[in-house]
Amino acid sequence: MEEKEQNFIYGKNPVYEAIVNNPKRINKIFIQKGFSYDKRLKKIVDEANLNKIIIKSVNLQKFEQYFDKKVNFQGVIASVAAVSTISLEEFLNNKQQGYKKLVALDRIQDPHNFGAIIRTIAAAGFDGVLIQNHRSAPINSIVEKSSSGAINHIPIIKTTSLNSSIEELKKHDYWVIATDIEAKDNYYEVDYNDMNFVIVMGSEGEGISKTILNKADYKVKINSNFESLNVSVALGVVVYEAKRQIEIKNNTFK
Amino acid sequence: MEEKEQNFIYGKNPVYEAIVNNPKRINKIFIQKGFSYDKRLKKIVDEANLNKIIIKSVNLQKFEQYFDKKVNFQGVIASVAAVSTISLEEFLNNKQQGYKKLVALDRIQDPHNFGAIIRTIAAAGFDGVLIQNHRSAPINSIVEKSSSGAINHIPIIKTTSLNSSIEELKKHDYWVIATDIEAKDNYYEVDYNDMNFVIVMGSEGEGISKTILNKADYKVKINSNFESLNVSVALGVVVYEAKRQIEIKNNTFK
Repeated sequence: MEEKEQNFIYGKNPVYEAIVNNPKRINKIFIQKGFSYDKRLKKIVDEANLNKIIIKSVNLQKFEQYFDKKVNFQGVIASVAAVSTISLEEFLNNKQQGYKKLVALDRIQDPHNFGAIIRTIAAAGFDGVLIQNHRSAPINSIVEKSSSGAINHIPIIKTTSLNSSIEELKKHDYWVIATDIEAKDNYYEVDYNDMNFVIVMGSEGEGISKTILNKADYKVKINSNFESLNVSVALGVVVYEAKRQIEIKNNTFK
Repeated sequence: MEEKEQNFIYGKNPVYEAIVNNPKRINKIFIQKGFSYDKRLKKIVDEANLNKIIIKSVNLQKFEQYFDKKVNFQGVIASVAAVSTISLEEFLNNKQQGYKKLVALDRIQDPHNFGAIIRTIAAAGFDGVLIQNHRSAPINSIVEKSSSGAINHIPIIKTTSLNSSIEELKKHDYWVIATDIEAKDNYYEVDYNDMNFVIVMGSEGEGISKTILNKADYKVKINSNFESLNVSVALGVVVYEAKRQIEIKNNTFK
């Protein structure tokens, strides 16, 4: 565990997902000495061997030099290269068939929320997530763990200006759907079928910046009898409404 | 801050919600010395004065004796009595008009998820949450903070046996809707209108126990292209689908 400068990911699911989906990212895997092997840990070892990744057995004390004791690393840590991101241009150049579904995050800074959002987007079968370099959560081990490894499934599209990227998406026939507590329409009044779209979500404190809000084709709210929802729950509600509509229209829900 | 044995809640929203909704719960409020007063902190002080609650000014070091430094207490902590819970009998005896919407949690042990779930239930205008004493997250300061204070809004119904309580609810004309990854029907294929219902949610690892699953009137799944959703996101998706259907039927969505 000499690689103090590298990224680490921990927990069985995140490590397993990283090996299966992106083995080149992984430098080494560390397994806690004396940790009881269950099925999932055994699958990790098998996949690591298949991909010729070095496995080291390490004392608990060694683990705890690098991680908070409260971290639930489940006996396994991997040292990895940073998550790879793509540019919007690269994403748009990939001309796969069918309508595209994106999410754009405006200033989401909490890594747990960011990770949970990526997990939701992957579960909903969306095509990518757009974030801005500046004022976004860093893509670290907390994000990776909260995403349950989904970060290796979903293209992360990084941009220096979310504002320009939204404009670019509009030029490429994307409809911009912005969540806004002051909107008149509900999120379920939009027809999500037969179009490319990007759902824009702001932070709980600040919402979406005015400049981006002004570019939206739809502004939608989520009704609440109490305060606003947690941002990752709110995104789940909107994203799954889109998924519901598309499944029903295409009769693919069974 | 002598009350080492008491519960504490921290953060502006949770403390404010507790004062407004449940002032009797609060013993004292501690405000960090030198902390800059914003609107929300001022509202806390005003409400505390109205309710004759003692406010003490405390050094940051004192705060940190009781809380992890990473805790974002936003300059304010309150020492409080435990959150009050009610029995299912008490809940059922309260004969308010209209159909009732409940959520039951089977072995949800993570306090962040528990708190986020309570916040969602409050936002969706549900009538209460049913939990079992044993194998549930304790109702502590993390739950209170994650719920953003919603824990003071929503009746927490505590039971020694979730299983018997589900039976009791069925006798009282509640329909039991259990989420289960192996279900055939989707969560959006249920008609949530014109009935009392309880949505049962299990933990991410274990799901709902077999005995309870066997009592369900509906078993529903949430489709996923990746692993399952985070439990609080999953609950948000189902609860908001119910809310959507009810709003549309009653034309109350604008």
